[in-house]
Amino acid sequence: GTSPSRRFNIALLPGDGVGPEVIAVAKDVLNLAASLEGIGFDYKEMPVGGAALDLTGVPLPDETLIAAKQSDAVLFGAIGGYKWDDNPKHLKPETGLLQLRKGLEVFANLRPATVFPQLVNASTLKREVAEGVDLMVVRELTGGIYFGQPRGFKTTENGEEIGFNTEVYAAHEIDRVARVAFENARKRQGRVCSVDKANVLEASMLWRKRVTAIAAEYPDVELSHMYVDNAAMQLIRNPKQFDTILTNNIFGDILSDAASMITGSIGMLPSASLRESGPGLFEPIHGSAPDIAGQDKANPLATVLSAAMLLKYGIGEESAAKRIEAAVLDTLERGFRTGDIYSAGCKLVGCKAMGEELLKSIESHK
Amino acid sequence: GTSPSRRFNIALLPGDGVGPEVIAVAKDVLNLAASLEGIGFDYKEMPVGGAALDLTGVPLPDETLIAAKQSDAVLFGAIGGYKWDDNPKHLKPETGLLQLRKGLEVFANLRPATVFPQLVNASTLKREVAEGVDLMVVRELTGGIYFGQPRGFKTTENGEEIGFNTEVYAAHEIDRVARVAFENARKRQGRVCSVDKANVLEASMLWRKRVTAIAAEYPDVELSHMYVDNAAMQLIRNPKQFDTILTNNIFGDILSDAASMITGSIGMLPSASLRESGPGLFEPIHGSAPDIAGQDKANPLATVLSAAMLLKYGIGEESAAKRIEAAVLDTLERGFRTGDIYSAGCKLVGCKAMGEELLKSIESHK
Ligand SMILES: CC(C)[C@H](C(=O)O)[C@@H](O)C(=O)O
Ligand SMILES: CC(C)[C@H](C(=O)O)[C@@H](O)C(=O)O
Repeated sequence: GTSPSRRFNIALLPGDGVGPEVIAVAKDVLNLAASLEGIGFDYKEMPVGGAALDLTGVPLPDETLIAAKQSDAVLFGAIGGYKWDDNPKHLKPETGLLQLRKGLEVFANLRPATVFPQLVNASTLKREVAEGVDLMVVRELTGGIYFGQPRGFKTTENGEEIGFNTEVYAAHEIDRVARVAFENARKRQGRVCSVDKANVLEASMLWRKRVTAIAAEYPDVELSHMYVDNAAMQLIRNPKQFDTILTNNIFGDILSDAASMITGSIGMLPSASLRESGPGLFEPIHGSAPDIAGQDKANPLATVLSAAMLLKYGIGEESAAKRIEAAVLDTLERGFRTGDIYSAGCKLVGCKAMGEELLKSIESHK
Repeated sequence: GTSPSRRFNIALLPGDGVGPEVIAVAKDVLNLAASLEGIGFDYKEMPVGGAALDLTGVPLPDETLIAAKQSDAVLFGAIGGYKWDDNPKHLKPETGLLQLRKGLEVFANLRPATVFPQLVNASTLKREVAEGVDLMVVRELTGGIYFGQPRGFKTTENGEEIGFNTEVYAAHEIDRVARVAFENARKRQGRVCSVDKANVLEASMLWRKRVTAIAAEYPDVELSHMYVDNAAMQLIRNPKQFDTILTNNIFGDILSDAASMITGSIGMLPSASLRESGPGLFEPIHGSAPDIAGQDKANPLATVLSAAMLLKYGIGEESAAKRIEAAVLDTLERGFRTGDIYSAGCKLVGCKAMGEELLKSIESHK
C-alpha cells in the first residue's frame, strides 16, 4: 500500500458519557479526510475524567498527561456523570479537564459560534437575529479565577466559614491570548471586542490596559471594549455585531456558552485550545450528556468539527479540515439530523449513522 | 388641606445623563399614587456619580450617604457619562454607586425580568419563548469579587505587572441573601434556582453548601442548583423555566442583564436593593444613556416601576404600588411608547408626555 507522506501522533481521550461514541465517529471521519490528503495518524487512547477515576483513582493520570504532551494534538470527548457528582474537588471529573488544560498550557481557547443555515430554526432567537451569526470567542484558559492562588476555605475568629478564590492576571498572560485573538480576527472580519469588568475589577483594568497595548501591534484590526454585563445583553440583542470576542477564563466560560446557545445547536459546536507551540486540545463544547450515553443518540458533529479544528489549528492541515467541514454541511444539506437538531421533514439518525453519512459525503467529494 | 396620615422621607438621587429626567417623572407619579392612599413624602435631593464629582470632587459625598441612611428609602436615577470615563477608579461615577450600596448595606438586589404582553415583540427571542417570562433575579450585592480584599496591582520580581481581585463569601453573607430569595419565591411560584460555579470555585462550593442548608428552613420552596455557564444558556433556551434565580454579585450582574435583555425592554425594568431593615435603594436597571440625555427621549417606566418597588418593598405600601403598576400597564395598553419600545401603530411620546399619561391613568382609576 501507499504509506502516507505525513504522520502525526494523536492522543485520543474519549472520557465519559457520550464521549466514547462521538470520539469513535470523529476518529473515522478524521482518518478518511486526512488519508485523502496523504496524512496518517498514530492514535494513543487514554482515560480521563470519570473513566480515569474508576480505573486509576484520579481524574487525570500521569500517563494520560504524558501521552497528551508527547502527542501532536489531543482529541477529547467529554467528561462527568452522576456517579462522580458528589466527589470532593480533587476527585471531580472536571478537575481532570482543568489539569489537562493547565498541564498542556493551552492558554487560548477558540470557540466559534456559527449559525448553520440549515439549522437557523433551532435557535430560540428570531430568524433575522440569528441568521448569519458567525463569531469566535477567544477565552483565556489557564489563568484567572480558575487557577488563581490563594484559594480555599477558612474559619474566621468568630467561627464562621469563608470560601475564597483569586482572580489574577499577569501582563504576559493577557498579552499572549490577546495576540491569538488579534491574529484570528485578521483572518476573519478584523474586529476584536475585548470583554471585561474594568469599571469594578483591578484584574480587568490591567486586562484592558494590556489588550489596548497589544492592539498597537495590529493596526489593521479594530479593537473595542465592552463590559461583561453589556456583552451578555448584546449577544442576545444583536449577536451579528460581533466578530472576535476576547475575554478572560470565567467570563469566557459564561459568554461562550451563551453564544453557543444563540446558534441553537450546541451539539454542533467545536473548540480548540492552543498555545504558542506544542500540542493543542480539541473538544466539543457540549458535556457528557449522561442521560443519553450509550444509546447511539449523541450528535457527533461537534466532535467531528473539533477534529477539523485539530487539522487546521493543531497540525496545519487546512485542506483536510475543509473536507470535514464540507462533509458536515453536505450531510446537513441531505437532511440527516440527530435528535437534538431534528425538525419535521428531516431524516432522524443516530450517532453512528450520522458518522456513516459523513464518510459517504467525504468519499463522494474526492 | 388634608394632611396625609403617613409621611416618609425619600432621598432622591437623580445622578447623570437621563437620571434627572426619569426621576422627575417618577417623583410625580409616586406623589400622586401615594397621596391617593393617604401617604405623603418629604424629599431630599442629593448629588451622586458624575454630578457629585463635578460639584464636590467625589462620586459619593458624605452628605449624600448620610441623607440616604437617614431616609426611609432611596430613589436613584442613573450614573456615568463620557466625561468621567477615563477617571481613575476612586473617581469613577460607578464607584459612587458601589459605595452607596455598601454604605447602605443593601445586600439583596431584586431584579425582576418580566415580559409585558404589549411588548413581547420587542424581544429578540421568538414569541413562544419570550411570552410569559416572569422571573426574579436575587443578586448578592455587597460582597463577592466587587468588594473582596486583597485587590489591586503588584509588580512581580521580574518586573511584570499583575492585577488581582478576591472573590470571597462568608457563610452569613450567603445565608441572609438566600433567605431573601426563599422568602421571595414563596410569594411567587415557590422555586429557587441557585446559580454558582461550584465545580471550579471554592467560594461557590461554600455558596452551594449554605444555600442548601438555608433551604431546610423553607420546606415549601423547591431548590435547584445550576452552573453559571449553563444558566446563561438556559436563559436563552427557555427562560420560562425560571422563577427565582439566586446568585452572587458578579454572576448576578451578568445574568440579570441577560434576563432583562430577554424581555426586550430594558427601559422597563426596575430593581430594589434591600437589607433586613433600614432604607432600601431603588433604581432602574438601565444606565445613564448619555447619547439621549436632556432630549426628553428617555423611557421613565423603569424608574416609575422602581418607585412602585419602593412603595412595596421599601415602605410596605402595596396598594399605592399597585396603582403605579396598573397605570404602567394601562398606559401601554393605550398605546403610548417612548422611542426605545416604539413599534408601528403605537403613539410615540417623550419622557415627560409618558409621565403625564401615567398621571392620567392613575387619576382615572381613583
Ligand atoms: C467542565 C468545566 C470545568 C468547564 C469550564 O468551566 O471551563 C466547562 O464548562 C467548559 O467551558 O469547558
Ligand atoms: C455600574 C456598575 C458598577 C453596576 C454593577 O456592576 O453592579 C451595574 O452594572 C449594575 O448592574 O447595577
